[in-house]
Amino acid sequence: MAGSELTNIKSPRVKAARRLTKRAFRDRDRSFLAEGPQAVREALALDGVVTELFTTAEAEIRHADIVAAARDAGVPVHRASGEVMAELAQTVTPQGLLAVCGFVHVPLERAVTAGARLVTVLAHVRDPGNAGTVLRSADAAGADAVVFTDASVDPYNGKCVRASAGSLFHLPVVTGVPVAQAVRELKEAGLRVLAADGAGTRTLDDVDLSGPTAWIFGNEAWGLPEEILRLADDVVRVPIYGRAESLNLATAAAVCLYASARSQRAASPVAARDPAP
Amino acid sequence: MAGSELTNIKSPRVKAARRLTKRAFRDRDRSFLAEGPQAVREALALDGVVTELFTTAEAEIRHADIVAAARDAGVPVHRASGEVMAELAQTVTPQGLLAVCGFVHVPLERAVTAGARLVTVLAHVRDPGNAGTVLRSADAAGADAVVFTDASVDPYNGKCVRASAGSLFHLPVVTGVPVAQAVRELKEAGLRVLAADGAGTRTLDDVDLSGPTAWIFGNEAWGLPEEILRLADDVVRVPIYGRAESLNLATAAAVCLYASARSQRAASPVAARDPAP
Repeated sequence: MAGSELTNIKSPRVKAARRLTKRAFRDRDRSFLAEGPQAVREALALDGVVTELFTTAEAEIRHADIVAAARDAGVPVHRASGEVMAELAQTVTPQGLLAVCGFVHVPLERAVTAGARLVTVLAHVRDPGNAGTVLRSADAAGADAVVFTDASVDPYNGKCVRASAGSLFHLPVVTGVPVAQAVRELKEAGLRVLAADGAGTRTLDDVDLSGPTAWIFGNEAWGLPEEILRLADDVVRVPIYGRAESLNLATAAAVCLYASARSQRAASPVAARDPAP
Repeated sequence: MAGSELTNIKSPRVKAARRLTKRAFRDRDRSFLAEGPQAVREALALDGVVTELFTTAEAEIRHADIVAAARDAGVPVHRASGEVMAELAQTVTPQGLLAVCGFVHVPLERAVTAGARLVTVLAHVRDPGNAGTVLRSADAAGADAVVFTDASVDPYNGKCVRASAGSLFHLPVVTGVPVAQAVRELKEAGLRVLAADGAGTRTLDDVDLSGPTAWIFGNEAWGLPEEILRLADDVVRVPIYGRAESLNLATAAAVCLYASARSQRAASPVAARDPAP
């Protein structure tokens, strides 16, 4: 800690961080904000990603291990007043830790390598909470990569980062790629490309999911446009056994991704991360 | 339409509806609000549930079928100004239709009948958006009932009603029952009670889900307390194949419910609602 506490919400340092809540500034600085102990811990686990850490006095005590890890990594740590933290944080009850992070996404060709078996593509997903939840589910299901196409929400949006619960730092994320290009490269890498859409003639129960698969998920309200459905090898819907019209996007994605993970593992068993039963 | 448009947000009729955004008034009046064309349409499909309908002039044209259905059912229809609708609606962009509905929940013994095969129990779920999303997924997965135990959020909370996307009106919902009582009655009805929790020693892939099953889902942040885990026949976790710590509650619930639906159907095939492929 370089001595004094930041108490002025108009100080240049606070303003420089605060403006990262806006996409234009994120893109300019190639930086974004990650809030809360879980996200900050995961960000620090990646070399050179965290460039600054803001902490309240209280959080510095409660999360002494995280603050120490930041210092050990040579990250400048700024103690901030509660008011400054409230200004920087985008949550109603800030958790007192906030990191400025450099962009973590990678080019498509680095994310989708020859051995990729499960890839998630977000096409036209506009709600950042949904996008972050899909990213978290993809991570849980053991996906190799998540691709945010150019018509989808910014993965560095604060709500998306929070909803991902650290997963943004766990697996290769690609952003800004046109859907058509993503589909082409995924096919070239040997993946079968499935579009998840209520218009599908086949259901999740009727398709063989044991091979390498990329799933495309679409917009919350209107699904996937015709031109994307045509790009896919198959259009698959989650079967509706009751009277609901559809599933929420993030839950549908989780059901599809877990169906793939389960089929792939049944075909060629790999241990899950957790201890065996 | 009984003539004039409601333009005064302080009129008794508007105030009486508006206070239903608060649980104490909902419980007193045994009524709640359902917003938007989808929810209103589903509510009208149930006899006697909608007791009043508020509509803007614009929505009355756009959703003429719904307004006509309400009138045909003898529901008083009030035309409201945009300002009044904004006062009543809990969304940022109100869709111009809002129904006052009588409570739709049923007693546990009516919801869980002898033939029940898939039941969802929400224990300590506090986030109304999550609860509504689970209700929607339960409906989609063909569940027979959803039980909101006494420590869970109010199913009539506006956010829960919205997230359920009409499912609140589709399947039997129970509210206010203690978890222990719900578990006892579910077991008596012949269901195996599974608690979904990261502490489970068995994973979703290792349990036989073909028989009648009730799933208990817990709190977003801390899962299920020890005393509930002990009540269950088994504690089951969704396997984590990647590096995520856990899944979001609503996505985990969808994965569990669909795993059950799929196993039950594989064991004794029943047609899904949708057309076969």
